Amino acid sequence: MDVISVIRTKRDRGELSPEQIDWVIDAYTRGVVADEQMSALAMAILLNGMNRTEIARWTAAMIASGERMNFDALSRPTADKHSTGGVGDKITLPLAPLVAACGAAVPQLSGRGLGHTGGTLDKLESIPGWRALLSNEEMMHVLDTTGAVICAAGDGLAPADKKLYALRDVTGTVEAIPLIASSIMSKKIAEGTGSLVLDVKVGTGAFMKNLADAQELAHTMVGLGTDSGVKTVALITDMSTPLGLTAGNALEVRESVEVLAGGGPSDVVELTIALAKEMLDAAGIKDADPAKALADGSAMDHWRRMIAAQGGDPDATLPVAREQHVVIAPESGVLTRLDAYGVGVAAWRLGAGRARKEDPVQAGAGVELHAKPGDMVTAGQPLMTLHTDTPERFDYALASLAGTYDIATAGTAFSATSIILDRIA
Amino acid sequence: MDVISVIRTKRDRGELSPEQIDWVIDAYTRGVVADEQMSALAMAILLNGMNRTEIARWTAAMIASGERMNFDALSRPTADKHSTGGVGDKITLPLAPLVAACGAAVPQLSGRGLGHTGGTLDKLESIPGWRALLSNEEMMHVLDTTGAVICAAGDGLAPADKKLYALRDVTGTVEAIPLIASSIMSKKIAEGTGSLVLDVKVGTGAFMKNLADAQELAHTMVGLGTDSGVKTVALITDMSTPLGLTAGNALEVRESVEVLAGGGPSDVVELTIALAKEMLDAAGIKDADPAKALADGSAMDHWRRMIAAQGGDPDATLPVAREQHVVIAPESGVLTRLDAYGVGVAAWRLGAGRARKEDPVQAGAGVELHAKPGDMVTAGQPLMTLHTDTPERFDYALASLAGTYDIATAGTAFSATSIILDRIA
Repeated sequence: MDVISVIRTKRDRGELSPEQIDWVIDAYTRGVVADEQMSALAMAILLNGMNRTEIARWTAAMIASGERMNFDALSRPTADKHSTGGVGDKITLPLAPLVAACGAAVPQLSGRGLGHTGGTLDKLESIPGWRALLSNEEMMHVLDTTGAVICAAGDGLAPADKKLYALRDVTGTVEAIPLIASSIMSKKIAEGTGSLVLDVKVGTGAFMKNLADAQELAHTMVGLGTDSGVKTVALITDMSTPLGLTAGNALEVRESVEVLAGGGPSDVVELTIALAKEMLDAAGIKDADPAKALADGSAMDHWRRMIAAQGGDPDATLPVAREQHVVIAPESGVLTRLDAYGVGVAAWRLGAGRARKEDPVQAGAGVELHAKPGDMVTAGQPLMTLHTDTPERFDYALASLAGTYDIATAGTAFSATSIILDRIA
Repeated sequence: MDVISVIRTKRDRGELSPEQIDWVIDAYTRGVVADEQMSALAMAILLNGMNRTEIARWTAAMIASGERMNFDALSRPTADKHSTGGVGDKITLPLAPLVAACGAAVPQLSGRGLGHTGGTLDKLESIPGWRALLSNEEMMHVLDTTGAVICAAGDGLAPADKKLYALRDVTGTVEAIPLIASSIMSKKIAEGTGSLVLDVKVGTGAFMKNLADAQELAHTMVGLGTDSGVKTVALITDMSTPLGLTAGNALEVRESVEVLAGGGPSDVVELTIALAKEMLDAAGIKDADPAKALADGSAMDHWRRMIAAQGGDPDATLPVAREQHVVIAPESGVLTRLDAYGVGVAAWRLGAGRARKEDPVQAGAGVELHAKPGDMVTAGQPLMTLHTDTPERFDYALASLAGTYDIATAGTAFSATSIILDRIA
């Protein structure tokens, strides 16, 4: 087996054999195939695609590159959720304790943010004392005792994916559906969850800019999960406008706690409950009522125990950014559009996100929205508040907000729709 | 400017801007753009192509990465030839002194062989004492005093191409017409020749396996040369069967000397004279008669002076391999096919070529043919003789010859054709 013949096969629109896939993933993990060879192959895959058989084998080879976890010893069925990432997507925070409160075990291995979408671990780290890094034993203990754990994935899970993801990030080969699907699913299958609900975002603030691509990605991932014995369902949800009223770290924790307290923005509540129902259904738990668990405080109880078990103080005051800048509505009317990407980039520029993976993030930075599409606004009222510890970044953040919203004359028709656009099982 | 945006432009079938091309070639040469980024871009170019404007700029940027030579001080017009490489292609050896004998100056910067096609420098190095490495001053002196020089290209010419070529070789991105064309033409334009004749090979033994690809490559290169003020013409020639009766190093020198002495195989003579006429015409030299220069010994005189000027002894006995193995015709009839690729691989395996660029080559190794397509053969007569210093390689070489020739019953129609298939100016 040699790498040039593998590259040529895909370059010339052929189908990679199981032997070629197993060999190239293993050889790349061991450093026998060089980065410049793998990036050429990744570009050929991006442009020429892989069929379902190839993607399944590619995913299996990435899983085989590392260890597999196992939750069979738990007394409760496991359910996990993965979002492809969006602006203001804090859903994991209320969702994990909510689903735990309804009887499932939720092992949520999460990542950090890169670019305009935030990372779950970054958000939780704004809670004083909270730790993302747990040993496998600690993780099992938190999961077993509180019903949910949100922590960093260990280095042992799918190391081939870690290496390949870092390579794709610098070679313009991120946006390949077979590679996105196998990257996500190799980690989730290696993690050992029994069921999985995927939140595939579509819109300006998401990876997938159109519904057809999102559906293709969802179908691919559902197929991979199902073929590997993981009960998998995908919701395709709208990411043309930010989710909720906040994009940032502590700002999103605060909003998540509001949801757990029975309040919070309607879109965040709608999606949290919808995903909880899917997770519970996939885990085989009938008759649970997530809306009731939010209303009666049991979800909040699970949140507090989960945060405390990882060293966090659920009663601590959350960090607040040193400086604020208010953007006011320039005219009166109906807010008909508020672009997710522009808000995401603004939050990132204010310090909520990072440009390189070794950069720190600001706990208090981000964007707080005072109106969402469909709301009436009056000239001069606050439209959004920008938060940062580094006020010299306001201008840079404001530049990304230019042209990101539209205000139409009062009376213009605006039809509110569900943010759930499709369901693929 | 950032490399990801350049890669994405080509990945998404866009046109690279002049600024993007200049930047990426310069940044790659300086090591700012990494190998894994350039290989992803090369694969995107291979699969999505470049238009004439992009290829011209890409070529110009590679030329600008290094020094340019200048032959304006010579009293004679310069004419160069480049072959895309084939089995038994020793044409440069008789051609350079022949064109010099007819009044042009021939600066022939050549390469070494890699894979199944031999290298001009490897062939000449089988002449005792002959040196391929000359300083720029030595090169000018040999050219000025003998009318022709065949030597290694200096490191200063198009360093971006050197780096990119080595990368393409290990990443499955060699076979991209825009990259092949710009690689060849950047070196030839930087070399400073006034006119250039291209020998674009097509067939099993060549890079280009079909006529349409060869024509596209030829059109691209002629366009690049013309746009850069180099009078450029291309002949497309057949490489489905080896050129001449030898493939190897000393074996091909011997055959070249036969041509210079007025003999030699008819296909080698035909192509040498055709290319000489094109070079002389492109250089503006009228009324020269290459056939006469071969017949009257003046080409041979120039050969002897050129070899001697580079330390070689034109009268020395050429090395002969220690062992021979004769392949006999298994039946009687007409030889209707003798595959160039199989013979090239056999010569390479016998030691005439190298697998890695740091490997040595055997001066005496190679394949000597006793019949060519169209010839009658009798069962038991020698069909070819294999030469090597390492007889343990005979079996390995013979394996590559299995199925490479067909013998049909006597009387089967065989139509001999010119090896020149097309001319593009």
